[in-house]
Amino acid sequence: MSSSSASTKLTHPNISNGWFSESGAMWPGQSMNIEVNQILHVEKSKFQDVLVFESKTYGNVLVLDGVIQVTERDEFSYQEMITHPALFSHPNPERVLVIGGGDGGVLREVIKHPQVKEAVLCDIDEAVIRLSKKYLPGMSISYEDPKVSVHIGDGFDFLQNKKDYFDVIITDSSDPVGPAESLYQSRYYELMRDALREGGIVSTQGECQWLHLSLIKEVLTFARELFPVAEYAYTTIPTYPSGQIGFILCSKNKETNFKEPLRSVSAEQELKLFKYYNSDIHRASFVLPNFTRQALAAKPAPKTA
Amino acid sequence: MSSSSASTKLTHPNISNGWFSESGAMWPGQSMNIEVNQILHVEKSKFQDVLVFESKTYGNVLVLDGVIQVTERDEFSYQEMITHPALFSHPNPERVLVIGGGDGGVLREVIKHPQVKEAVLCDIDEAVIRLSKKYLPGMSISYEDPKVSVHIGDGFDFLQNKKDYFDVIITDSSDPVGPAESLYQSRYYELMRDALREGGIVSTQGECQWLHLSLIKEVLTFARELFPVAEYAYTTIPTYPSGQIGFILCSKNKETNFKEPLRSVSAEQELKLFKYYNSDIHRASFVLPNFTRQALAAKPAPKTA
Repeated sequence: MSSSSASTKLTHPNISNGWFSESGAMWPGQSMNIEVNQILHVEKSKFQDVLVFESKTYGNVLVLDGVIQVTERDEFSYQEMITHPALFSHPNPERVLVIGGGDGGVLREVIKHPQVKEAVLCDIDEAVIRLSKKYLPGMSISYEDPKVSVHIGDGFDFLQNKKDYFDVIITDSSDPVGPAESLYQSRYYELMRDALREGGIVSTQGECQWLHLSLIKEVLTFARELFPVAEYAYTTIPTYPSGQIGFILCSKNKETNFKEPLRSVSAEQELKLFKYYNSDIHRASFVLPNFTRQALAAKPAPKTA
Repeated sequence: MSSSSASTKLTHPNISNGWFSESGAMWPGQSMNIEVNQILHVEKSKFQDVLVFESKTYGNVLVLDGVIQVTERDEFSYQEMITHPALFSHPNPERVLVIGGGDGGVLREVIKHPQVKEAVLCDIDEAVIRLSKKYLPGMSISYEDPKVSVHIGDGFDFLQNKKDYFDVIITDSSDPVGPAESLYQSRYYELMRDALREGGIVSTQGECQWLHLSLIKEVLTFARELFPVAEYAYTTIPTYPSGQIGFILCSKNKETNFKEPLRSVSAEQELKLFKYYNSDIHRASFVLPNFTRQALAAKPAPKTA
């Protein structure tokens, strides 16, 4: 691990002339650029290139392998929408596992549900947790909650040792290039399913319908083979490629209807707790434009001889 | 007017090292960059700087004063969503006016409604129409329809001479810096109201909730003073700043409920006609996240003495 901090003048290959430019093998021909006030941290961790900078208009920004993970200005949309449609679709989410999500933002949302007795986070890279505690206090504050425990390690390995335990598993991963590649495979969804108790629910970072329809279709196809219910939802978020990101939600309970919240809080509570989520946005997040609806339509069952 | 075409090597201040970088006084600290195959046209028209380039992954792109107006890859989202929620909310939209929209894309959507007998377009800049006919055939094809007529001139002036005439007015304008500035003012909404017949409906480019909440609130406030019904809706679109754009919809009919389509076509027809719009996305486009819902809530009526 090589690491450097703000005492010397820091540089990073994605930053020049005061602007950060996002790398993107997964979104060729386009790039989000963000103006930089100062570079706060540059590090090659055991798993990835880590950059934290203070931006001019998006607060502090965490970047892994050249790709924006969170900015302080718009992270709430992602954290709330990967978390609450899943948790409000479970009758009593007592045990919740977060794979990835080392910034702590998803945990922050998870523990807003009083039903949660145990929230476990498993991230492969301790650097993300360490730097979030330093530079992203609004997210990493969740680590102080006594219900939270942290496991540094591979999510794949962690799941293999957990059977029939969790009520909800949220996979807040980076894209399927680099350390998160295995998290977009059928075997991983099988492990999540087996780590869930009866009626358990999965919510994963599910990529963008404007960019990755064929990947989304592939994941949804094997998810539908492993779970009786699997759906795609999405939220808007300016600093993710093309301005939005999706989620794959799966349930072991065939009665689950993700499109209609099973639980809710009062409108007043909603406004107090959430900056993005409300019951109506929950429903709306599953409503797909025609091009996505057609691409992701469940295939008719194959004819048997 | 100075103009140049592809015979000489074209250059443009927003393009360097093969990438277009969007200008943005209205979105400080961020910039969408798009990879360029070749510059097709550069021109200073009477009103604005006009650029057309062929991109690597977004088809041909039209840029005015450094700001992306349309790309061939994602324009359908904007054109369909500024048009159909308005037209499907009117019982019989026979006469439709488009202010701006010189690319022809909104017209293309308008004439999908068989009720439309007359579709008038008024754009201030003939260069946009001329260049769209050359470089954006998928949009400008609408100009060939016999129901369409074109007026080159200022929308403000055009409206002053039309009273009690149109059923729907769509303002497909650029942002309120440059030639479109007056289109974001109360007086303009008053002119639109007066140019509408009884029960008439307005739909305007309404900017982005992630960037321009105070502008949206300002427009919505005077729109609500001029019309009995005024709402904000939005759609996702990768190449607009922050990946989405909103619309202000107003109706002279106090019974209009924009959130529930008054008319619809069959699901089959929907899939044939639209790449983005469907009745469900119509409803969902009015569902706002908490931060917008709070900011745009209608103020309680002031107490009278």
